[in-house]
Amino acid sequence: MNEASAYAPANIALAKYWGKRNEELNLPITSSLSISLNQYGATTTLKEHTQHDYFQLNGHAIEPNTEFSSRLTQFLERFRPHPNFYFEVDTHSTVPIAAGVASSACGFAALTLALNSFLDLNLDDAALSILARRGSGSACRSLWHGFVEWQAGKLDNGMDSFATPLPQEWHELRIGLLLFNTEKKSISSRAAMHQTVLTSPFYREWPQIVAKTLVTLHSAIDEKDFSLLGATAEANALAMHSTMLTSEPSICYWLPETVATMQKIWQLRAQGLELYFTQDAGPNLKLLYLQQDEHLIQETFPSIISIAPWNLQNAQ
Amino acid sequence: MNEASAYAPANIALAKYWGKRNEELNLPITSSLSISLNQYGATTTLKEHTQHDYFQLNGHAIEPNTEFSSRLTQFLERFRPHPNFYFEVDTHSTVPIAAGVASSACGFAALTLALNSFLDLNLDDAALSILARRGSGSACRSLWHGFVEWQAGKLDNGMDSFATPLPQEWHELRIGLLLFNTEKKSISSRAAMHQTVLTSPFYREWPQIVAKTLVTLHSAIDEKDFSLLGATAEANALAMHSTMLTSEPSICYWLPETVATMQKIWQLRAQGLELYFTQDAGPNLKLLYLQQDEHLIQETFPSIISIAPWNLQNAQ
Repeated sequence: MNEASAYAPANIALAKYWGKRNEELNLPITSSLSISLNQYGATTTLKEHTQHDYFQLNGHAIEPNTEFSSRLTQFLERFRPHPNFYFEVDTHSTVPIAAGVASSACGFAALTLALNSFLDLNLDDAALSILARRGSGSACRSLWHGFVEWQAGKLDNGMDSFATPLPQEWHELRIGLLLFNTEKKSISSRAAMHQTVLTSPFYREWPQIVAKTLVTLHSAIDEKDFSLLGATAEANALAMHSTMLTSEPSICYWLPETVATMQKIWQLRAQGLELYFTQDAGPNLKLLYLQQDEHLIQETFPSIISIAPWNLQNAQ
Repeated sequence: MNEASAYAPANIALAKYWGKRNEELNLPITSSLSISLNQYGATTTLKEHTQHDYFQLNGHAIEPNTEFSSRLTQFLERFRPHPNFYFEVDTHSTVPIAAGVASSACGFAALTLALNSFLDLNLDDAALSILARRGSGSACRSLWHGFVEWQAGKLDNGMDSFATPLPQEWHELRIGLLLFNTEKKSISSRAAMHQTVLTSPFYREWPQIVAKTLVTLHSAIDEKDFSLLGATAEANALAMHSTMLTSEPSICYWLPETVATMQKIWQLRAQGLELYFTQDAGPNLKLLYLQQDEHLIQETFPSIISIAPWNLQNAQ
């Protein structure tokens, strides 16, 4: 095959992936559960290239000696048909890069799917998820739309640590992206995660918190209990940020706008609006609400990007 | 005696008092350590009143049926020379009320000292501290200037739970108050503390965190290691706020200005300025720095109230 393309959506975790038990294999300490962002994701096209690997992101060449470029080359090593085979990887992303909207997740997921197709690998879902995970942990959840759960697994080699989609659909559910800052982060989520696991006195409570979060999320999804889903996701995000705030030195991804918006959300909720947030390793907030409140929320937050995760007609 | 007056300074905890093992007696789960705020505190004058208790705060009568008024009456019950004896309590505070600058602490401390004098009780320091604690937990630390440590104690009756001043002085140390909001808080520290102990999954780690904070603060004070003092106090405050953020529902005293200032402090520190903060159950920050940087910090934060805790010539 001369060329192969694949699309993978970004995803937002409702139960966060925060902490690795194996840094090299991206094996997590806990399971996690996400929703994919439908049309916001990455399309990756693969071709053969002469002399060396060549990477493009949104039409711009990626410099060969950057960290991102090394991660890609390292990832591709295990796929070369022969040692002198080089790849051209052209990625178009519709999500802001490095803004805490898991752009590396959809990028590595799309790359994995494109490789499977380009090299006729015919890998099954678990194998694809495991390979995507090697590129970026949460990429293993970006192979599907809708709710996706990543089982932490127990094996040292990580062969039981992969994601599977949940069968439940929830067409009324909406996710809104509120982007305060799309500049590159001062500390990468990878480094923040590592430092938190090593230094936060609260981290030892994290695995039990996530275990409880997952049980509650499953019943919220089964019973379509939106208040329970929202409150549980929000509490999980605040617990994750609390482990960061208490690491040494403290890691604070919150900007003044982040806190102003949290306060506004809590105020609106006190007035009866069913609106919740989650936050990843960045200053932006991701809002959770239902279709019935979408107009009101778009009026309240004019810059919001409102996503219907199960309304897939426009997705690739 | 017809009238008696006493002054007590407000205090800022470097190792926070956060969580009670006995709500009625204000017995804490952990010990705590504070610095007193010199001339910022409360002066309380006591007289006999006819018919009923009468309370004034900064020249304004306190309504008889408010929560504050009930707390004062309840506190005074154990001091009445006879059942039909009523007190007039006139308090002048130089700290903003209910803004997280422990105005109830200096108020109950001053009242305890004034009662001791007015009624000729000749109580010793431990007894005074225990009585002040019954009014408001951290009031037991407001009987002295400088560093004060409150030993949690172990007895059910609280007779071993009182504060004592530390002998060390640190004349170069400064505390700066940055007040973003002096309005009444949405949730009292009393209620926030109660809810946190009951619902935060991180609270179980708090006692060990404070134990470690206290050991480190003692060596920072002994060795006049300002970086260690500041970093330890700041980490303790962030840990306390993390227990609040993870309570159900979440308690967030942070305002946009709080986070903007934290970020500014971290940025200045990265540039070499020895500047740290602590924060109580309110949005305001209390900065820690040394005399040598006082001018620079006053230029950077023009609204700061800079306090020299051991420069007592102006204190009452």
